[in-house]
Amino acid sequence: MKASRRRKRQLVAFQGERGAFSEEAARKLLGASIEVLPCQRFEDVFRALDRKEVHSAVIPIENTLHGSVHENYDHLLHFDLPIVGETNVRIIHNLIAPPGVTFAKVRRVFSHPVALNQCLDFFSGHPQLEKVPFYDTAGSVKMVMEEGLKDAAAIASTVAAELYGGRILRRSIEDDRQNFTRFFALRRPEDVRRTPVKARRGSQWKTTLVFSTRNVPGALFRSLSAFALRDLNLMRIESRPLRGKPWEYLFYLDFVGHVNEAACRNALGHLRELADMLRVLGCYPRGD
Amino acid sequence: MKASRRRKRQLVAFQGERGAFSEEAARKLLGASIEVLPCQRFEDVFRALDRKEVHSAVIPIENTLHGSVHENYDHLLHFDLPIVGETNVRIIHNLIAPPGVTFAKVRRVFSHPVALNQCLDFFSGHPQLEKVPFYDTAGSVKMVMEEGLKDAAAIASTVAAELYGGRILRRSIEDDRQNFTRFFALRRPEDVRRTPVKARRGSQWKTTLVFSTRNVPGALFRSLSAFALRDLNLMRIESRPLRGKPWEYLFYLDFVGHVNEAACRNALGHLRELADMLRVLGCYPRGD
Repeated sequence: MKASRRRKRQLVAFQGERGAFSEEAARKLLGASIEVLPCQRFEDVFRALDRKEVHSAVIPIENTLHGSVHENYDHLLHFDLPIVGETNVRIIHNLIAPPGVTFAKVRRVFSHPVALNQCLDFFSGHPQLEKVPFYDTAGSVKMVMEEGLKDAAAIASTVAAELYGGRILRRSIEDDRQNFTRFFALRRPEDVRRTPVKARRGSQWKTTLVFSTRNVPGALFRSLSAFALRDLNLMRIESRPLRGKPWEYLFYLDFVGHVNEAACRNALGHLRELADMLRVLGCYPRGD
Repeated sequence: MKASRRRKRQLVAFQGERGAFSEEAARKLLGASIEVLPCQRFEDVFRALDRKEVHSAVIPIENTLHGSVHENYDHLLHFDLPIVGETNVRIIHNLIAPPGVTFAKVRRVFSHPVALNQCLDFFSGHPQLEKVPFYDTAGSVKMVMEEGLKDAAAIASTVAAELYGGRILRRSIEDDRQNFTRFFALRRPEDVRRTPVKARRGSQWKTTLVFSTRNVPGALFRSLSAFALRDLNLMRIESRPLRGKPWEYLFYLDFVGHVNEAACRNALGHLRELADMLRVLGCYPRGD
């Protein structure tokens, strides 16, 4: 990471190898010309932003087949790094091999176990192919290219194929086309106003918050009433265990609206009366 | 699995090696004299019960530090195997070594990565110990015993130490004492009435259900009103993605009450009016 570059271009941290779906999300959210800092773990991504080693971070938060990325919900609570944007990326898996390796030559297919499991119909139709688990999708393309394997391919994104110079032998081999991942862009609190993700004209806003209720009957229902009574549309609720208080929970809510609108301000005030703890995690233009 | 044994004793499937916390839960729920069938994966546990290879199954459903075991929520939906009991087990991690291996001799400590990560304070206090990830807690005791390792210990339950003949060198080395796992006992639908888990005198009942709402604003709030308006206490809500319908969700609810009580029957009737899908997953005596 060169200081000279940092001054010119926005530097963005994400988890995974270059060419990961998170990099695709980062470019969609923050522009094609960003510089990227790939990190090994989600915690490293949050820490890089917190320590000012990058300008922004992009993290996956939920997938339409697998559900929430709970670890990232926990990090959103422990770090103070507001959400400034969201986007959805369709997960398209491609079979990618080094140039010269034809489909007939492929015997081993490397990828992350989740990706391999999302292409089971493809493997059923081609029983000659052995599934080999690897730590990362884009990383599996990098590896088959670097090792110059003659009988191997990888499963990963189109971006990963382009980046490492692999050839796409079969496109979109995933079983389920309804496979999307939702990503958040994060900034440091002091940078939120200065460099927000651009909202398209007329686009809606969404707000994400986390709260805990008093442990009394009906507490969650009353908390949700703060939104329902003001016709605010809840998009999502996610619960996580509250550490140190067995069988009590934190709730993460997404609703449509901007914190500066009167109905939202009032709903937050109402919820604050009912909640033990309440924190707004971000207010951002609704993704496509 | 001998047929002669099956006739005498109840056979119970669980995931993990003999001595796993699931086995402790199974004995707590179904009696000390059960026979057990350890399975490799959660899906194998459900399948063994579904195929009548066992009488009951015991699965973990949530942990107070890590949250829900989402895979098992998904299996509860896909199999028709009602919940007939619940219990909570305190997760106590012990340092266990083969007889003759003293604490001073230990250099390597094997266990499941989650267990190793729950004992970080202990490792900070003893920097000479190397953490070695293993596929299973109880399995790590089995391995250090079978291999007769002279410099190694494992982290697992008291039951695992007894079962494999290991010596407990340090008791309860976990960082957080508020570490509990909640387990469900499952039966086949036709066996629910015949052999229910015994309810203690005066104990409360709980009901677990899963539903999906129509995708309209306020749908979740209105669904919860079916319970709140009848003073039924919701203990838990968990959401999972609805396959094939991106950004729509299934909700799993636990509430206090028996499906035969009038208020519960009415609440379920009310929820059925509002929900696209509703299924009761079980009604069982509340665990301690």
